[in-house]
Amino acid sequence: MEENNKNKKPVVAVLGTGLIGCSMADGLRGWAGEIIGADNNTAHLDEALGRGLIDRSMAAGEAVKAAGLVIIAMPVDATVRVLPGVLDNAGDAVVIDAGSVKGAVCRSVERHPNRDRFVAAHPMAGLAVSGPGASDAMIFRNRKVVICERERSSEKALETCMEVFGRLKMEPVFMDPLFHDQCVARVSHLPQVVAYCLSAITAEDSSLRDSMLKIASSGFESATRLSSSPAGMWLPIFRQNAENLNGSIDELIRYLSTVQQMIGAGEWDALGAFVEEANDARKRYMSAYKNR
Amino acid sequence: MEENNKNKKPVVAVLGTGLIGCSMADGLRGWAGEIIGADNNTAHLDEALGRGLIDRSMAAGEAVKAAGLVIIAMPVDATVRVLPGVLDNAGDAVVIDAGSVKGAVCRSVERHPNRDRFVAAHPMAGLAVSGPGASDAMIFRNRKVVICERERSSEKALETCMEVFGRLKMEPVFMDPLFHDQCVARVSHLPQVVAYCLSAITAEDSSLRDSMLKIASSGFESATRLSSSPAGMWLPIFRQNAENLNGSIDELIRYLSTVQQMIGAGEWDALGAFVEEANDARKRYMSAYKNR
Repeated sequence: MEENNKNKKPVVAVLGTGLIGCSMADGLRGWAGEIIGADNNTAHLDEALGRGLIDRSMAAGEAVKAAGLVIIAMPVDATVRVLPGVLDNAGDAVVIDAGSVKGAVCRSVERHPNRDRFVAAHPMAGLAVSGPGASDAMIFRNRKVVICERERSSEKALETCMEVFGRLKMEPVFMDPLFHDQCVARVSHLPQVVAYCLSAITAEDSSLRDSMLKIASSGFESATRLSSSPAGMWLPIFRQNAENLNGSIDELIRYLSTVQQMIGAGEWDALGAFVEEANDARKRYMSAYKNR
Repeated sequence: MEENNKNKKPVVAVLGTGLIGCSMADGLRGWAGEIIGADNNTAHLDEALGRGLIDRSMAAGEAVKAAGLVIIAMPVDATVRVLPGVLDNAGDAVVIDAGSVKGAVCRSVERHPNRDRFVAAHPMAGLAVSGPGASDAMIFRNRKVVICERERSSEKALETCMEVFGRLKMEPVFMDPLFHDQCVARVSHLPQVVAYCLSAITAEDSSLRDSMLKIASSGFESATRLSSSPAGMWLPIFRQNAENLNGSIDELIRYLSTVQQMIGAGEWDALGAFVEEANDARKRYMSAYKNR
């Protein structure tokens, strides 16, 4: 990425070869000169190599030194742990993360001398399944990517970041990291907790258990879709966004209790108005979602 | 359906030409000699006629008298209201309902002299959208249909019912109505309430509102899919199954509070075990769901 290499395709190091890392690699094929993968999970690494999603594998430290662009697509706790070291060793490379919580990662490099080479990003995309096997650049298409603290990234870093996410057909939204964390607590982390709970309820040892699973249909299927996602990805997210998430669980419990009271008291008009409010919110959401 | 008409295709009266009624009509095309629709919602009736889902429309009373099979696919409160009268006037016809709550409908004809001509059924299928426009016999394929109080239906009524749901490619599950209502409270009515709440939270007047909807992605989409469903269908269900539903809301609040406590106390091992329990429950459910 030096001036004299301006037209050379960048070497991209992908740290974390799970669903997001490999889907980004998939989308950057052709744009990148070479894609190097690094992961402690050797099964993921081998699968990513086998599928041609990365060109070769390396230890993370070596990959960072070889790259013009480093993408960190690891669980959010690991991201916060490795990011300062990556910025120490990345030289002129641009570093982008893809984590679902942004407050902690921004704080972790607040005073880092190379802070400006880093862009804190959250591509709003995913699947309920994980690993390189399900990776697909299409998951990003027409979705938003949240960029936090843009003013703390250099022109060059932002420009590279826009190129990357433009290539993935994502639309940038600029946001304060703490504001981002409040939003995703409600539209992502809360639905995740709810899906786990709805699935877990059917596992409870009761006379109903087998019959519930036998007759549950498409509504249950979509309501619990997210509950396939692994603890390894979500626990670090819940941990980093604990306060906001617990606030949003409080909020949901308040809503559920209100519905419960309306049902108990037979306040059908009030409940009808509530349902229509939800219908409208869903409609607004879907029209924005489809028009992207 | 008289002995001498044994090989004659039955005239089917569909009371309620919404999504379920019209999807059943769609699936019975060819099996039925004629399909008559009845509905106070003239827009639905006209659309059902226009789409060729029903052959003609009639007042419900006339349709019942003309039919060898009556299918009641109305909201559950209307079903309970009309069923005794339908059984009064149905002559030798078989009457099947398709309501989502079974206790109240069974109670409503408990001592009816023609009880044995009725089969209490709940096809476990649906879409988040409503009306004849979305109707499609495919929604039933490989799903379960719950039949309640089979011992209270005549041989002939049960046989006709099996033919109908066999034609729709549904698999029967026999269940006590009160047990059914407990099960669906958890796998259907509770997810419905949750979807309404998750959507309504994003409508709350707060600084987050616009940003939440802007960045919400595919996870939010599936978690709130059910929240498009109209109050007219769901309020009567919540009302008839109020006690079980409120019990299942209590159960969910208990689960949510437990997760909240684990997050607050940093009990990550316990939370990890809970998530894995949910993963397993989802896996068991999906394997049953896919293998149908």
